Amino acid sequence: MLERHRHHDVIVIGAGFAGLGATRDLLRAGASVQLLEARGRVGGRAFTRYLSDGTQLDLGGQWIGPTQELILELVEHYGVETYPTPRIGDPVVDMGGERLTSPPAEVDALLEDIDLLALQVTPERPWDAPEARAWDQQTFASWLVGTEYSETTIRYVARIVSGGLLAGAPSEASLLETLFYIASAGGIRPLLGYEGGAQQTRITGGAQIVAEHMASDLPPGVLRLNEPVTSVEYGSTDARVTTTTHAYTADRVIVALPPTLAARLRFDPALPPLNDGALQRTPAGSALKVHAIHSEPFWRDQGLSGVSTSATGVLTETVDNTPPGGPSAVLTGFVYGEEAVLLRARPLEERRRIVLERMADLFGDRARSPEDYVEFDWMGEQWTRGCFSGHMVPGTTVTFGPALRTPVEVVHWAGTETATRWNGYFDGALSSGRRAAAEVRASLDDQVSEE
Amino acid sequence: MLERHRHHDVIVIGAGFAGLGATRDLLRAGASVQLLEARGRVGGRAFTRYLSDGTQLDLGGQWIGPTQELILELVEHYGVETYPTPRIGDPVVDMGGERLTSPPAEVDALLEDIDLLALQVTPERPWDAPEARAWDQQTFASWLVGTEYSETTIRYVARIVSGGLLAGAPSEASLLETLFYIASAGGIRPLLGYEGGAQQTRITGGAQIVAEHMASDLPPGVLRLNEPVTSVEYGSTDARVTTTTHAYTADRVIVALPPTLAARLRFDPALPPLNDGALQRTPAGSALKVHAIHSEPFWRDQGLSGVSTSATGVLTETVDNTPPGGPSAVLTGFVYGEEAVLLRARPLEERRRIVLERMADLFGDRARSPEDYVEFDWMGEQWTRGCFSGHMVPGTTVTFGPALRTPVEVVHWAGTETATRWNGYFDGALSSGRRAAAEVRASLDDQVSEE
Repeated sequence: MLERHRHHDVIVIGAGFAGLGATRDLLRAGASVQLLEARGRVGGRAFTRYLSDGTQLDLGGQWIGPTQELILELVEHYGVETYPTPRIGDPVVDMGGERLTSPPAEVDALLEDIDLLALQVTPERPWDAPEARAWDQQTFASWLVGTEYSETTIRYVARIVSGGLLAGAPSEASLLETLFYIASAGGIRPLLGYEGGAQQTRITGGAQIVAEHMASDLPPGVLRLNEPVTSVEYGSTDARVTTTTHAYTADRVIVALPPTLAARLRFDPALPPLNDGALQRTPAGSALKVHAIHSEPFWRDQGLSGVSTSATGVLTETVDNTPPGGPSAVLTGFVYGEEAVLLRARPLEERRRIVLERMADLFGDRARSPEDYVEFDWMGEQWTRGCFSGHMVPGTTVTFGPALRTPVEVVHWAGTETATRWNGYFDGALSSGRRAAAEVRASLDDQVSEE
Repeated sequence: MLERHRHHDVIVIGAGFAGLGATRDLLRAGASVQLLEARGRVGGRAFTRYLSDGTQLDLGGQWIGPTQELILELVEHYGVETYPTPRIGDPVVDMGGERLTSPPAEVDALLEDIDLLALQVTPERPWDAPEARAWDQQTFASWLVGTEYSETTIRYVARIVSGGLLAGAPSEASLLETLFYIASAGGIRPLLGYEGGAQQTRITGGAQIVAEHMASDLPPGVLRLNEPVTSVEYGSTDARVTTTTHAYTADRVIVALPPTLAARLRFDPALPPLNDGALQRTPAGSALKVHAIHSEPFWRDQGLSGVSTSATGVLTETVDNTPPGGPSAVLTGFVYGEEAVLLRARPLEERRRIVLERMADLFGDRARSPEDYVEFDWMGEQWTRGCFSGHMVPGTTVTFGPALRTPVEVVHWAGTETATRWNGYFDGALSSGRRAAAEVRASLDDQVSEE
């Protein structure tokens, strides 16, 4: 028999930023909450490891930036130290043959065009955009091909937008979904930028630290780790949530998981068609993040910042991920879309060789011989199944889109994929948790006034 | 403690046509097999109900046709009676304003264009088609819009191909995935046709009867109903499969489920990235099938066959589903894509009103007042989650496609979504089961010769 627990006001499933944020809000409002996490740690897609010499390595999300008010508030609240993303020297912009230190004017013009379209999309209701249906029916790739820009510019922009932002190929999201994502961050410049943008700031000790602070703040017993939820039996007044080891009951449930994991819970009764359909149509991204560990940031000696973006090659982007004071230097690369799929099909040794070869193209021969090489594939992680985040597939934002955050009886939905501000980011996760907590509080208040 | 069972050569998960076929093949080859089914019945997406007066109502798949050799073989083997799909009178082709009895020449020309492209796709390897990448990067909708045909022709073809065949919107599958599907059936004519095509023949007593014959043929104990599988622990030599009530072990496992259900099993270790990514990117179709029950097939009195296809309106297709001898007459409608999503958001009474109103447009006022109205939404079914079948989303056939049937250690994949012949049909399910059984037999033979 499964051990039973006392009845709670709310059960929150998933202790990433969305679930932790929702729990925090609900506890402050006086609700009793049980927060259930499958892993032995909190933080979800924020996951920091340390090399044997103590060097911080963020294997998942790692950046915060201006206008991400909820995460910035937490960083300040907990007195977490931050540092500016190191950019000592020039970036490399490889346009395929042509090597520059900033993107050509044509790239800016195309980004500007995209930004202007994104202004027509209200992130709360992308399906109401004037040309929503037409924009949802074509892939971002098709739209790009239809522009007047050069093939190289198109390829470069496809890679940094669909890869660098949505963690996929430009054919895997519609123009509408891409514009929605951009609109949710307030434009393409805040998304792509370092100073003044989403890559401005890093967290000393790693992004996971903020989640750990949030967890430490919880009263004893609220958070239970190592408890994968297997089923959610729900009705119009309460729910029973079963994990691999325990059973819990509550008035309300918040599912704060990536959609592909939410779909894998066994709901009883089965989720309504539109809700299940929406979860099926929001696969997780397929980015690969790889780290070359060096004794020193040798690229700086050549006047290079370690930051690169490329129209070609296996690595769409690289960045100097060296923490201040090291001890080791870290050159991190990002692989997206088709390249990520092709790379995954190779054995580790070959993947390493291919990645380091490209790093050597960009930063010279020393890049070929790091002290260590670390990769981490979120798509292989049982309790994540892809990163950075999930996006609705073409043709579905206008139809199944609203169902992604429509409550089902007492079940509510959080997670950065449901966010309308900074969708896909820590900040989006937090705002989704806040929204779900507010929904739940309103429903609990209704209940009290009815009693 | 879960009850344990003796070790088997093979465990097959799912007793639809794929799983039943694989089990049959393996038993004939002398293997010991345990077939596990979540439902209290076999047949998967073949599900027949009977009205109180005995009228047969196929709520899922219902047709068989020429070149579907495996299902035809079974029908003959079991002596199952069949009947030609009733088409007594003229069809209605509603081009939106213009009402015809056969599609205009422009429709034939566009279908011919599609067919010619499909000839360039080898169903076993769609990713090797000459323009595979370009075709996968655009939705079928985008390709259609780029043709020279009239808006009405495009809308009509989009609805009968993407809706009628792939059970979705033309934006939900790429041009490549659509061509692959067509190629797997040997062309668009066999797919769309009645006489000589996939809608030629119906099964007396319902399609589920064939699956029931296959189940009756199994030695006692092979099939276990009402046992939803929850987890599959696997390695390089054997596997342990746990259901809600029992645990089983075997040398090999065949997962014969739609991809969205396969993704929901808990695999230990977690599935490799490409396999899980492929399952995430193959959502189930979203067709709605609705039945109006009348005392007689009144449309025949007006010289109408009950068969209709429309460029507009909630029903893309209707068909006379009256079994020979009745007793009741059945007019069945199909709703796809955006219309299916919009309809699902309405309450039952309104859905019924909208559907019957459209039937009255097509077949006269009597259609507005049936004796009964029956709908069945496979997307709401816990153990299916959508119909007719799943299709890879745009941009993923060339990348994640091969992983859909790549074995993982001792785990093999069946189900009509993995078929290269009549993908999406009963026959495809059977051929996928045959292929998976052959893979397993080869591996078991290897094992024997190594011992």
